[in-house]
Amino acid sequence: MILHIASFRWNDTVTDDDVTGLTTALEEMAAGIPEIRSYAAGPNLHLRPGGADYGVAAIVDDAAGLDAYLDHPAHLAVYEAFLGRMIGERSAVQLPIDEGAFR
Amino acid sequence: MILHIASFRWNDTVTDDDVTGLTTALEEMAAGIPEIRSYAAGPNLHLRPGGADYGVAAIVDDAAGLDAYLDHPAHLAVYEAFLGRMIGERSAVQLPIDEGAFR
Repeated sequence: MILHIASFRWNDTVTDDDVTGLTTALEEMAAGIPEIRSYAAGPNLHLRPGGADYGVAAIVDDAAGLDAYLDHPAHLAVYEAFLGRMIGERSAVQLPIDEGAFR
Repeated sequence: MILHIASFRWNDTVTDDDVTGLTTALEEMAAGIPEIRSYAAGPNLHLRPGGADYGVAAIVDDAAGLDAYLDHPAHLAVYEAFLGRMIGERSAVQLPIDEGAFR
């Protein structure tokens, strides 16, 4: 399985309403993409100093599942409506994980 | 529960041996910190264009568990031996997740 993680720093134009709207849109998107096995998205809890503004984590079966997710019209629509204009910096990584080993 | 994700871009001095040594050290560290419920660390698979060089993801019960992990001598030792000199850029986020909902 693949764990895809992405963290974002926003640019100066982003409002709290943008972030709330984004989170709702991402959760609705994830519910509609069967290749997404697990999904988490939201503002950084800032439990530690520093850090980015927002994070996304998704578990998919394999590279094909990752492409199905990231190339899905619903994901592209979220970029169109929110992320494309909100992102100042993006940092993403994919890691291999064993099924059931990450929970 | 808390999902802690961190991604790193290396500076120019980092070698493949550094990355291998880091991964071994992080896995040994995680095995020795009971507050870490799940852990994944490794080089980015680069299944998609761009992205950072390396990623870490950890699940802990709560903020206290996160502090126990990040302030643990074994974690500080990994920073001392590897991460401190390897990191060019770091991006970290903590997200709330429901127990068992992320696997």
